[in-house]
Amino acid sequence: MLRQNPMLGLLVFVPVVFVAETLGPERHTLLFVLSVLAIVPLAALLSHATESVAAKTGDTVGGLLNATLGNLTELVIAITALRSGQYLLVKASVAGAIVTNTLFMLGASFLLGGLKYRIQEFNRASARLQASLLFLATIALLIPSVVKVAEGDQTSFTQQLSLGLAGLLIVAYALGMVFSLKTHPELFAAAEHGGDEGAWPIGVALATLAGVTVVVALVSEIFVESVQQAAEDFGMTPAFVGFIVVALVGGAAEMTSAFSGARKDRLDLSVGIALGSASQIALFVAPVLVLLSYVLGPSPMDLRFWPGAIAMMLFATFTASLVTNSGRSTWFIGVLVLMVYLIFAMTLYLLPPAAH
Amino acid sequence: MLRQNPMLGLLVFVPVVFVAETLGPERHTLLFVLSVLAIVPLAALLSHATESVAAKTGDTVGGLLNATLGNLTELVIAITALRSGQYLLVKASVAGAIVTNTLFMLGASFLLGGLKYRIQEFNRASARLQASLLFLATIALLIPSVVKVAEGDQTSFTQQLSLGLAGLLIVAYALGMVFSLKTHPELFAAAEHGGDEGAWPIGVALATLAGVTVVVALVSEIFVESVQQAAEDFGMTPAFVGFIVVALVGGAAEMTSAFSGARKDRLDLSVGIALGSASQIALFVAPVLVLLSYVLGPSPMDLRFWPGAIAMMLFATFTASLVTNSGRSTWFIGVLVLMVYLIFAMTLYLLPPAAH
Amino acid sequence: MLRQNPMLGLLVFVPVVFVAETLGPERHTLLFVLSVLAIVPLAALLSHATESVAAKTGDTVGGLLNATLGNLTELVIAITALRSGQYLLVKASVAGAIVTNTLFMLGASFLLGGLKYRIQEFNRASARLQASLLFLATIALLIPSVVKVAEGDQTSFTQQLSLGLAGLLIVAYALGMVFSLKTHPELFAAAEHGGDEGAWPIGVALATLAGVTVVVALVSEIFVESVQQAAEDFGMTPAFVGFIVVALVGGAAEMTSAFSGARKDRLDLSVGIALGSASQIALFVAPVLVLLSYVLGPSPMDLRFWPGAIAMMLFATFTASLVTNSGRSTWFIGVLVLMVYLIFAMTLYLLPPAAH
Repeated sequence: MLRQNPMLGLLVFVPVVFVAETLGPERHTLLFVLSVLAIVPLAALLSHATESVAAKTGDTVGGLLNATLGNLTELVIAITALRSGQYLLVKASVAGAIVTNTLFMLGASFLLGGLKYRIQEFNRASARLQASLLFLATIALLIPSVVKVAEGDQTSFTQQLSLGLAGLLIVAYALGMVFSLKTHPELFAAAEHGGDEGAWPIGVALATLAGVTVVVALVSEIFVESVQQAAEDFGMTPAFVGFIVVALVGGAAEMTSAFSGARKDRLDLSVGIALGSASQIALFVAPVLVLLSYVLGPSPMDLRFWPGAIAMMLFATFTASLVTNSGRSTWFIGVLVLMVYLIFAMTLYLLPPAAH
Repeated sequence: MLRQNPMLGLLVFVPVVFVAETLGPERHTLLFVLSVLAIVPLAALLSHATESVAAKTGDTVGGLLNATLGNLTELVIAITALRSGQYLLVKASVAGAIVTNTLFMLGASFLLGGLKYRIQEFNRASARLQASLLFLATIALLIPSVVKVAEGDQTSFTQQLSLGLAGLLIVAYALGMVFSLKTHPELFAAAEHGGDEGAWPIGVALATLAGVTVVVALVSEIFVESVQQAAEDFGMTPAFVGFIVVALVGGAAEMTSAFSGARKDRLDLSVGIALGSASQIALFVAPVLVLLSYVLGPSPMDLRFWPGAIAMMLFATFTASLVTNSGRSTWFIGVLVLMVYLIFAMTLYLLPPAAH
Repeated sequence: MLRQNPMLGLLVFVPVVFVAETLGPERHTLLFVLSVLAIVPLAALLSHATESVAAKTGDTVGGLLNATLGNLTELVIAITALRSGQYLLVKASVAGAIVTNTLFMLGASFLLGGLKYRIQEFNRASARLQASLLFLATIALLIPSVVKVAEGDQTSFTQQLSLGLAGLLIVAYALGMVFSLKTHPELFAAAEHGGDEGAWPIGVALATLAGVTVVVALVSEIFVESVQQAAEDFGMTPAFVGFIVVALVGGAAEMTSAFSGARKDRLDLSVGIALGSASQIALFVAPVLVLLSYVLGPSPMDLRFWPGAIAMMLFATFTASLVTNSGRSTWFIGVLVLMVYLIFAMTLYLLPPAAH
């Protein structure tokens, strides 16, 4: 297996990061680099296990599984930040995960697939449905941020609204599961592409999925503890760290799967992972974090976002709707979507710290 | 007929509300409840009469008729508010009618139809055209609200702009009638579905349409006089009353028709009523109210909306474009659209009164 | 030829405007009128030459050529304004060119074509691709304007961001050329329509294209020198001049081609010119102007736009996406798109000068 995927050699960094954390918990930059190096091969393992399951169960269930497990990482990172009361980081990572999944994961999938195949087709009806779902989920998430009230009433109004919103979002998420798994599973079924050579037996694959997810979670904790300090050493702003770095590392597992799907001309899988994962952040991760803040956090967290983050989330979901609308993709569409992401990243990198 | 539609039993509240108004004009909560109870069966009558005409003339003319007569109710309500100078209520009811028609009527039609039929198809070309029309009408309506000028120049600038805008919107509305009735009627024609059993003769249907509309208008006046006071008793904010309550009651007739169309798998009728009615509010009702304010109101009314209302109108029309784009619907699309509406309603309900 | 196109008689104003400029360089209103009268026939010549080339090379290359040469005029006008440090005028003309190309050129093409042909079809895949491109280019251009930072950091932040952005946009533009000319030219190829009667030989056509472009540039300089002063005499605001007058005159050449394409039922050509030209302004003209401001201007120019201009650019690109999505057009779609443009123009015309 190592011969097939040399990246797995990086697995050696998994024990190394735990040892390093025990020996020198204050060496933030080293721990940051080591934890990123450890997450990458774990993500590859996760990707292979997911594809093994997907080969047995169809792209739909595989895609959902992938999105769920991939977002577990993001959830763990966000919960760690929640506990220490870093609400700005939590919100930046929620917004960043939506933007990164939609623009970076989708754009890079289109580009990587498009460099190998001239024009790639994917299931238009399914992509449109998922883009609509993502759009509605994002709007729901953004309402408390666009409604302004008098200063004195702001806090209690936003808090009540965020709590009610969290409830509605979770209900919609549950109904969405009923829809995609029970009543209309065929809408999410991608065309058959064959090619499950090298797939693990389903038992091994499921065990790997579960075990590796736990290890990813543990490494992610080291990552989140070190990332802020390391970021300062590298000259990054907190906005950039939350939006870009946390989102990229937290989504590494899903990205590996999405990119590998694109390279195999299974763009349905890539689009499903990217849009499904972004929707799940908005419909599930965000409201769960609000509810958990009442239990775990020093004070209740609301769902008000910084205006720049609102604009970026809206632009990202519009872009997703637009580029998936035709059911066809080429390398240049990927370039343009990535360019929008790069411009967002550049903006956040240059942002003076006080603006966040 | 009563056996077919037990709701018609509620017609008894029509004389009751007029008697109650004569005997106790200051019993606002009672009058509010009675007038709502009276409007519901009148809406059902209107719906049956409209369907009878539609069965004879095709869904297009039926849909237009329906939208026109349904919006007469909204117009009467708004004119009553205009006369007493309640411009905030007038604007809230205009914005609320667009949002309620687009999100609630469309979403509930999709949900009600989708619970009966697995996947519903509707005329994509026609839905896209109507969604484009609605989008352009809404943008036109919103321009004066997004352009900010220096404080001192604001009033005269907004007033001039609103007047010019009202003229342009009415011209566009008239041209739209030429387009949909004269030059391109086939674009609005829905597929034949048969099934006009129980239809009234066209003479009876037309007479009922006219007569019931007048009664609806009279009851609506009692409704609008009592609604503000009753709302306070129920703990609703003025924003919630204008946006949600007035829009839901004012649109009850159209909703009955749209929902009944969806349950009969005639989703073209539902989409046509919902989007057509919303467009008509923007292109016709809003500019007519601006012009009438010069004659009937204490001072000229402009077309500046509160920022939260602008965001809601924009989100609603984007949603309409997105979900009608594919020409197919399922119950879950309906759930999501209704969820966005619920979030808007919740936001308005929680809003501190001063923010409106 | 004069018999075929009586507009060419206006060519007499080309020498007249140069003579008038020499004799009375301070007669601004006269020079303004004369330069507009001179640009119109030059635009017609340019249009005929471009169509001759297009007849030989296919609509794609013809369309690109047209957009490039048409935008040369806008570039020359903007560079003249840049040199004299009129950055507000430069930015207004960039925003205005995007809005005018998208709304006026597209809307008038739909209307003019629709008055002759009942329903016009155009290449949907190509139009969607170009609309996506335009949307992404516009978002890229608008990011620096939607991100607000603390007052003290604003200038250096915006300047750095604008410079980085200019680099990214130019890279995307170059990759777009590779895409449309090298790797996927067939996506831009319109259906064959025949009808190249009266086409010039390719040598004559290319020589005319080059020569007339230079003359247009020279006349445009006189135009830009006189326009501000003349505008004041006519009671127009600076915002209206930059957004509407400069954009309409600067785009006259492309408009003649787009409208003539629409009248010949070659709507692919019209949509290609309108959207391609708008994209090129965002991806090429705007970043080149930022870079040139370091060399030619009194100080570096950034890419921050006035909030009203942002809203207009966003609405214009959404409109373009929406109305080209179906690949079909009728006269009324044209009317609605033109109405949005008219409302923008009216707003800018009424704007108190200080708001710009």
